[in-house]
Amino acid sequence: MRITRIVEKTAGIKSNIRNAVIDFSKITLSLVAVETDVIVDGKPVIGYGYTSNGRYAVGEVLRERIMPRLMEADPDSLLDADGYIDPHLLHDCLMKNEKVGGHGDRAHAVAAVDIAIWDAICKAREVPFYREVARRHNGGKALSLVNAYPGGGYYTEKGNAGLRDEMKGYLDQGYKLCKMKIGGASVAEDIERIEVAQAIVGEGNLAVDANAGLNRERVMAYAEALEPYKLAWFEEPCDSLDFELQTDLADRYPHPIATGENCFSRQDAKNLLRFGGLRPDRDVVQWDPSMAYGPTEFIRIVELSRPLGWKPESCSPHGGLLLGLGLAAGLELGGTENYPLVFQPYGGFSDDAVVENGMVAPCEAPGMGWETRSKLYNEVLKPLLD
Amino acid sequence: MRITRIVEKTAGIKSNIRNAVIDFSKITLSLVAVETDVIVDGKPVIGYGYTSNGRYAVGEVLRERIMPRLMEADPDSLLDADGYIDPHLLHDCLMKNEKVGGHGDRAHAVAAVDIAIWDAICKAREVPFYREVARRHNGGKALSLVNAYPGGGYYTEKGNAGLRDEMKGYLDQGYKLCKMKIGGASVAEDIERIEVAQAIVGEGNLAVDANAGLNRERVMAYAEALEPYKLAWFEEPCDSLDFELQTDLADRYPHPIATGENCFSRQDAKNLLRFGGLRPDRDVVQWDPSMAYGPTEFIRIVELSRPLGWKPESCSPHGGLLLGLGLAAGLELGGTENYPLVFQPYGGFSDDAVVENGMVAPCEAPGMGWETRSKLYNEVLKPLLD
Repeated sequence: MRITRIVEKTAGIKSNIRNAVIDFSKITLSLVAVETDVIVDGKPVIGYGYTSNGRYAVGEVLRERIMPRLMEADPDSLLDADGYIDPHLLHDCLMKNEKVGGHGDRAHAVAAVDIAIWDAICKAREVPFYREVARRHNGGKALSLVNAYPGGGYYTEKGNAGLRDEMKGYLDQGYKLCKMKIGGASVAEDIERIEVAQAIVGEGNLAVDANAGLNRERVMAYAEALEPYKLAWFEEPCDSLDFELQTDLADRYPHPIATGENCFSRQDAKNLLRFGGLRPDRDVVQWDPSMAYGPTEFIRIVELSRPLGWKPESCSPHGGLLLGLGLAAGLELGGTENYPLVFQPYGGFSDDAVVENGMVAPCEAPGMGWETRSKLYNEVLKPLLD
Repeated sequence: MRITRIVEKTAGIKSNIRNAVIDFSKITLSLVAVETDVIVDGKPVIGYGYTSNGRYAVGEVLRERIMPRLMEADPDSLLDADGYIDPHLLHDCLMKNEKVGGHGDRAHAVAAVDIAIWDAICKAREVPFYREVARRHNGGKALSLVNAYPGGGYYTEKGNAGLRDEMKGYLDQGYKLCKMKIGGASVAEDIERIEVAQAIVGEGNLAVDANAGLNRERVMAYAEALEPYKLAWFEEPCDSLDFELQTDLADRYPHPIATGENCFSRQDAKNLLRFGGLRPDRDVVQWDPSMAYGPTEFIRIVELSRPLGWKPESCSPHGGLLLGLGLAAGLELGGTENYPLVFQPYGGFSDDAVVENGMVAPCEAPGMGWETRSKLYNEVLKPLLD
């Protein structure tokens, strides 16, 4: 298996939503396509990947550093015993001449390539991504249904009425657990929003996400105000690097805390789990494979988490993509996010995915299953190599 | 004070040296110049900055994210009470719409702009950088002489004879403490190199730098082999994010360890100091202001280090630049690096700087003093806005 071509392109997400911290109208992402010399159904296998919709495009890192290393490598040096590209050898190749630490933009660039190569490997083997992950890393066991929740409840001009309608819509679509944003208003206003949403979804089925936008005083004020609502989790109360504040919060807030999406390497993840004050018996870790060096690193993080007391069920990939769904199914994780309304056409499961009782089946198409999302595939991914 | 123009440019360093991990021939860096509306000596004040020679250029991050935020900001919103740009307000402006965590490439981009603005502020005030730092952050106290050591001893084709000549050359130039690379050879070969160098510089005057290129087994083998030489410090024995290995090393290796150059934010620095196993009574922290959001963040890190038990004397900026010399003088730090032979024309002090008994005076030119390095100024920086 050889890579015969690789291209990257920057795209905008043109979203008018905001959370506690970010205005998404200027956010961009990087798309990657790789063509291989493997022929399936008479055509060369092509793999696709893209970075998160939550950060920025990394075109220069891809063009100047990551992609040339892949194309300059001896193709045979990247292969496993079966003749397919080995994701670990790939990772080392992409990271050649990169220093330790500073896991920022380059982690997204490597992720996009890693995702595209996994997509290509699975297509070459003619298996769905989740099956390949399960075979390699989970003794062949996989979930037939995965807990899925919509990441929504952003601040919009429609206010609380819009929030109510949005939550109703999620239930109509088959979701049980729903997530909404907090931290972009006063505590009192957010509590009102929480009551509006919880009245629809029911106690225990609402998670809230502060997007790390709260300072110490606000974190503690929210913790006190949120406690009676017994939320499914309180996501990113603060910067997950603020181990001190997070530990203090965990000492006072009895219900689950969730974090991890802004932690981009196994080294950082290990330190977060060891020193971040999180509680393996209740908290949720949400690594984002499209920001943190791709599924290869994600799997390593899940594996290093076990000896630290973290079961796979405590992990739920951030970012509502087929990628997260596949990892959740293949590693038997606790769940995965989805973006039914936002970040289109990048976020979301297959066009024909059915959510029932808050659960969804993994995609059975070969590879990541990008082709099962027609707008994403036809308008964004396929044109990359046309 | 207003920024009237800002430009960035990528440059290569075309260096054929290597350390344990990195081949420098492909390394690039980003240059930044800002023009202001402040007139001194009949000309607009111009500030310059550049990223580290140890990572890669960040042109896209500068062009697409950091620079537009500066130019789109209300100029008055960035000013302090004296009418100059306030570095903290500047930092917040440059980081608008950036998420928490992931302190990688963008930390270098912000650093280049922050350095250029500090250069401009000091030129507008007609004071040397170190004096301005001392006035703002050190009660006006500054060092008149700073400990300086050459970062050298790379692996070259000249072998041990070349290393011996290089160390002799440093002593002839007035240096006492000298640093050399290790980890790019076997332990036995490196011990031979250390003996060659130490025979020239004398016990206590040699530091070694492994550039985080050693795995656990090699770290421990080096620790045992290095111990009898009573080195000034053992720099970057491992990835500074590997708190576990670093702690184990600190438990076994009695002499100073140095690290910090690959830690790019105050959040990361705090965690390293709290959980990285380092010992404030002997170890050395080496934050790099040209990689880690610039002097503004560097000063914050030095300030947050104090309550954690770290005195300013334990800190020595990484990267051999006038920038590090100015910070060391203005904050009364333990020393600073210099690059007499490598990374030219970017590394190094003023052309007329005199090192005596291992010490050098800070640069008295207004701003960073880039103009006192003729090749750097005339061939690289000045043309940016010509």
